[in-house]
Amino acid sequence: MAHEALPLKILAEQFASLPGIGMKTAWRLAFYVLTMTKEQSDEFAHAITTAHDTIKNCSVCQNYTDKLVCDICADGMRDKSVICVVESPKDVVAFERSRGFKGLYHVLHGLISPMDGIGPDQLFIKQLLSRIGDPQQEVKEVIMATNPTVEGEATAMYLSKLLKPLGVKVTRLAYGVPVGGELEFADEMTLSKALENRNEL
Amino acid sequence: MAHEALPLKILAEQFASLPGIGMKTAWRLAFYVLTMTKEQSDEFAHAITTAHDTIKNCSVCQNYTDKLVCDICADGMRDKSVICVVESPKDVVAFERSRGFKGLYHVLHGLISPMDGIGPDQLFIKQLLSRIGDPQQEVKEVIMATNPTVEGEATAMYLSKLLKPLGVKVTRLAYGVPVGGELEFADEMTLSKALENRNEL
Repeated sequence: MAHEALPLKILAEQFASLPGIGMKTAWRLAFYVLTMTKEQSDEFAHAITTAHDTIKNCSVCQNYTDKLVCDICADGMRDKSVICVVESPKDVVAFERSRGFKGLYHVLHGLISPMDGIGPDQLFIKQLLSRIGDPQQEVKEVIMATNPTVEGEATAMYLSKLLKPLGVKVTRLAYGVPVGGELEFADEMTLSKALENRNEL
Repeated sequence: MAHEALPLKILAEQFASLPGIGMKTAWRLAFYVLTMTKEQSDEFAHAITTAHDTIKNCSVCQNYTDKLVCDICADGMRDKSVICVVESPKDVVAFERSRGFKGLYHVLHGLISPMDGIGPDQLFIKQLLSRIGDPQQEVKEVIMATNPTVEGEATAMYLSKLLKPLGVKVTRLAYGVPVGGELEFADEMTLSKALENRNEL
């Protein structure tokens, strides 16, 4: 690519630095940007800087927001007695998409991972404890919705030990076979958990 | 997604407007932008506006460049007697990646397509004719490297009729089975062309 125009190459490299975007896709996207109108490309660039500059953590649940308190925490219709603890804002998006949860969230922004040097102090755990300690909030249940990985399990166990003495019910997401998935491709752990937690029909 | 922070949603929608980027990938990319440093996200935004503002067509071959004459046209080592005619700057990237071509290019920026209302006047054909008419350039061969589609064929035929009277050799890319491809998945037209143009071993 020695003969490519430099600004185009720089743009392609920027796209390629995004997760899951290979060099070929990056070039395709860079070429596409050139076919945009000036207004469209300015809007795109503006969206990047604006999102980066205005998005911060909600002062209550630590989810991404452009306000002091995010829309979910500020929503009077949500059930304030249940807090769903997740690793990252992406998980909030996933739960909201499922429309199955009407309580509040708490985003840890990571998982306890001694291998990566991440201890409880680097996560937003203090903020979770103060929410539960607050008598005005009346939190009755905390759902551990961290990933079913080693780090996710360890974090859920750690938090549950911290939370139970505060007199709050601590629950964990159910394990089982994914809906629409094929049993044939489910791993042994998932299958045995699905058997163990079987429900009567 | 009613509860997503607006600037984040706008950014995700910008990503989703790019070709081949679905809504799920777009959200993943938007979240990734938030994990960048301020410098990185500014650089990304800057690359978009810079590429869009500085890239224009080379005054000779119409390929994208940030100079008056692109690096390929300005390269004294290239064979100026052969011009490879392509539909778009992407095709130039593909040929340069193959390292198989040492001549010059001419980018039409489209193909003749009456269905889409694109006639010869909307393409950079006049510029091609003037390159070939220029006695200083000494163009001996023009390779039609448009896509093997109806529009690509029609454009190649149209140009070849224009160019032949100018005393220049006009050639077309070879058809055949793609290297590394499986015969089983090749279509009938490709297979019959590959048979027709078979070479002695």
